[in-house]
Amino acid sequence: MDFQVIKVKEDVLQENNKRADELRKYLKNKGIYFINVMASPGSGKTTLLTGLINKLKEKYNIGVMEADIDGDVDAKRIHELTGVRTIQVHTSGACHLTAQMTHDAINAFDIKDLDLLFLENVGNLVCPAEFDTGSNINMMLLSVPEGEDKPLKYPLMFEVSDIAVITKTDTKKVFDFNEEKCQEYIKRRNPKAKIFITSAIKDEGVKPLADYISSLIEANK
Amino acid sequence: MDFQVIKVKEDVLQENNKRADELRKYLKNKGIYFINVMASPGSGKTTLLTGLINKLKEKYNIGVMEADIDGDVDAKRIHELTGVRTIQVHTSGACHLTAQMTHDAINAFDIKDLDLLFLENVGNLVCPAEFDTGSNINMMLLSVPEGEDKPLKYPLMFEVSDIAVITKTDTKKVFDFNEEKCQEYIKRRNPKAKIFITSAIKDEGVKPLADYISSLIEANK
Repeated sequence: MDFQVIKVKEDVLQENNKRADELRKYLKNKGIYFINVMASPGSGKTTLLTGLINKLKEKYNIGVMEADIDGDVDAKRIHELTGVRTIQVHTSGACHLTAQMTHDAINAFDIKDLDLLFLENVGNLVCPAEFDTGSNINMMLLSVPEGEDKPLKYPLMFEVSDIAVITKTDTKKVFDFNEEKCQEYIKRRNPKAKIFITSAIKDEGVKPLADYISSLIEANK
Repeated sequence: MDFQVIKVKEDVLQENNKRADELRKYLKNKGIYFINVMASPGSGKTTLLTGLINKLKEKYNIGVMEADIDGDVDAKRIHELTGVRTIQVHTSGACHLTAQMTHDAINAFDIKDLDLLFLENVGNLVCPAEFDTGSNINMMLLSVPEGEDKPLKYPLMFEVSDIAVITKTDTKKVFDFNEEKCQEYIKRRNPKAKIFITSAIKDEGVKPLADYISSLIEANK
């Protein structure tokens, strides 16, 4: 039974990679830069996105796809706080988005005239890392309350993420969080990862990340 | 392709439920009560377990299985802080434990003379909820930093958990966390859930939970 499952998974991943490449080409032709945002539940994805969008929306037309198993709180919140176009995607219980699900969501969304598209993936440090969504770049968040040891326990998420953002640094006073060790653990999984230190709620560290994203968009043109 | 995957998943879940029932019988015969602990990464599972074990270890022989994708920090930490028998289980990248994986782990572990066995599942609010591990009870944790809206987004985890523990309440001063709403959302998913409010680091609220677990063990004898 195990072998059968593994075989199906390989097929699924291979098919997914093909779809992801197709989606990347499709978005490139439309001039849209696509960022896949991944993290644990409650790590501050929506708050960071709100901060980033408010810094980038003067320069770029931005859209956000919020993926959750259920609920629509995040899509509403982002729209209320930034005014940009959002869509809520439900995954029917799935723990991640595939490239096909992402493509379907994009088709259901009015993306024409967008320059930048964010996908807030399902809150999960495991499964989303396995599925290429067709994004140009993966950005993962690790919040101070989760602890600095997460790269030791969830290797793939850190390996596939080009950007790692440490969030909620304003709460350091109540947590025993070793930032230096955290950075060392992240680099151990991915020596090329760009690391940003942020407190989106205090608007600290968000601008350097917004500037970096801006430079990626310009370089992709 | 989708149908094929769904069919395999149904078979896997059906097979898993059968294995879980067998494992429950096996442990019942040995007089071992088995608790499956689930939560997001960094929600305080290890700290809560340490607090619980130190309150229960005089009365019961306790064992802990720590499941992670990689690393062994938690198994070492629990053993150092409580002295009880621990084993680290690696899931080869999997986002959850199946009943078979749990059974294999138990076979690799010296469980004779145990009264109480904890499984700390992979940090993940999605996949572990789908797989019955063969436990007598599921206990899930939701930490204050994650926010009160998690039951809205991750329904199954709350539906399958008999015990929901709100953790890290000592950090409320730095988070906008609505405890009343959180309890209401949990009850919406599972009206019978027993809810406990804890700060394991301050040893607050851990004793009522330890007493409840003790009552479950006695009732199961």
